[in-house]
Amino acid sequence: MTDTKSRIAAYAARVEEYMNMQLAAIKSRRGDLATDDVFAAMHHSLSAGGKRIRPALIYAFCEACGGTPELADAAACAMEMSHTASLIFDDLPSFDDDDLRRNQPSCHKAFGEATAILAGYGLICAPFEIIAGDKHLTAEQKAALVRLLAANEGVNGMVGGQLMDKHFEERESVTLEELQTMCLGKTGALIQASCEMGCICGGGTEEQIRAAGQYGRSVGLAFQIIDDILDVTSTEEQLGKPIGSDAEENKFTFVNLLGIEQAKQKAAEVSAHAHDQLGCFDDPSFLHALADMLLVRVQ
Amino acid sequence: MTDTKSRIAAYAARVEEYMNMQLAAIKSRRGDLATDDVFAAMHHSLSAGGKRIRPALIYAFCEACGGTPELADAAACAMEMSHTASLIFDDLPSFDDDDLRRNQPSCHKAFGEATAILAGYGLICAPFEIIAGDKHLTAEQKAALVRLLAANEGVNGMVGGQLMDKHFEERESVTLEELQTMCLGKTGALIQASCEMGCICGGGTEEQIRAAGQYGRSVGLAFQIIDDILDVTSTEEQLGKPIGSDAEENKFTFVNLLGIEQAKQKAAEVSAHAHDQLGCFDDPSFLHALADMLLVRVQ
Repeated sequence: MTDTKSRIAAYAARVEEYMNMQLAAIKSRRGDLATDDVFAAMHHSLSAGGKRIRPALIYAFCEACGGTPELADAAACAMEMSHTASLIFDDLPSFDDDDLRRNQPSCHKAFGEATAILAGYGLICAPFEIIAGDKHLTAEQKAALVRLLAANEGVNGMVGGQLMDKHFEERESVTLEELQTMCLGKTGALIQASCEMGCICGGGTEEQIRAAGQYGRSVGLAFQIIDDILDVTSTEEQLGKPIGSDAEENKFTFVNLLGIEQAKQKAAEVSAHAHDQLGCFDDPSFLHALADMLLVRVQ
Repeated sequence: MTDTKSRIAAYAARVEEYMNMQLAAIKSRRGDLATDDVFAAMHHSLSAGGKRIRPALIYAFCEACGGTPELADAAACAMEMSHTASLIFDDLPSFDDDDLRRNQPSCHKAFGEATAILAGYGLICAPFEIIAGDKHLTAEQKAALVRLLAANEGVNGMVGGQLMDKHFEERESVTLEELQTMCLGKTGALIQASCEMGCICGGGTEEQIRAAGQYGRSVGLAFQIIDDILDVTSTEEQLGKPIGSDAEENKFTFVNLLGIEQAKQKAAEVSAHAHDQLGCFDDPSFLHALADMLLVRVQ
């Protein structure tokens, strides 16, 4: 477990350094545009911490396919920026209207709504510029990565899940299946894409890409179930946002639909499915440990 | 002039058909996600008409470099979707707060703010999926197109210009140079990118790409100056939005800073610079006519 945590921390440090370098490079190219605050807003949201799980998955699958970390830097950075953009939009008044994100003011609270929206807009675009401009990947890899990221970020992935979540506010009830579909979009799509993109960076086979996608789909779902559990069992300081905020707003969560014990059991089952996918990788020990670690948070 | 108009109309019809096909393809892949309204919102904004100038530039430069229209379909569709996304965001209450766009309710007026934001989000992502998934372009062309689009759409391009425009609201005055920098970002960046992307689709040389960029930069600026002039000289029906709305809000425009006559003269000068760039293309007659046609609107 210590090894797993230190490897995640090392990946996080690596992607943070690479993100800062990319942000500085973009800022240095801006010409006369007087846009200091949008860079400050992007930096605010990018540096607010978080677990950097998606970059860790990209690096880990790249290495599990025999690739070096250099091959995964652009995709890892791109994914964390895309994820951060989704958080900026999710916190807006039209969506969750959250004042806090990871113990910091949310982007629109700190910079105003217009700047936050444009910072988010910039963080949707920059990932594609970064992947397409990378020096280590082949053009074929770049096209495959761009396609995967865009498809899982857009209306058939994260954005579609976000909208389904929004519509839940007007509903009296939702089924477990609907909740799961929403989560597989809103949270799962980018986690699944991270695993697949890692394989593409590392030159993985079709079989490996498919298995990584299944692993990511399951880990993503387990991740969301666990977040729902943490929302009612953590302290505000641990969570970085007001606790019980999901339950308070009468949101549909796995805990609300299943109860805590059954939600824990479902997380364990989904996680077991993730473990079953890793047979086609030479050294999947870190990927097993990562799936375990997510679960341990609620045990 | 009739030939030019009918060629623009043919390009517009082509990109509209291709966009509808791509939107239907994306919709058909959505799985269980219950996101009908986001597709309706995307379709509402994409089908509201407009001149489709950016796709016309992409097709025209692709053909001027010896390419077939098939090579330009994905880029033309991508660019019009990206442009449409920027309009959806520009109309939001945090920005221009416009109720009308091209004689139709703006996206957030018709569908609500959350759905409009997500439709815009989807229209930022889809272009990259469409370019990266194209069957006619090489992987190298795709990577180059993605990089150009993302760079000109993001904080150093359209988004940066949008933010600078937003900051103008708090200013007592701006200089002509500042106004020009803002316009080169907000309106010019995607027009310049369209010209460069057309050359990439058509297999143009470095010299042609550079010349197209200069042409696009000038045409884009002329386009904005002319829009400012039309804002005070057109009828509401012609313009598709309330006339004089820029002047009313005390926005800084080329007309406000220069007066109508000098603004017309500046548009003519900038347009002349565009004409000077076309020497390296075999048959630039349509590109000359296009630049002329933009000017004629205000003569």
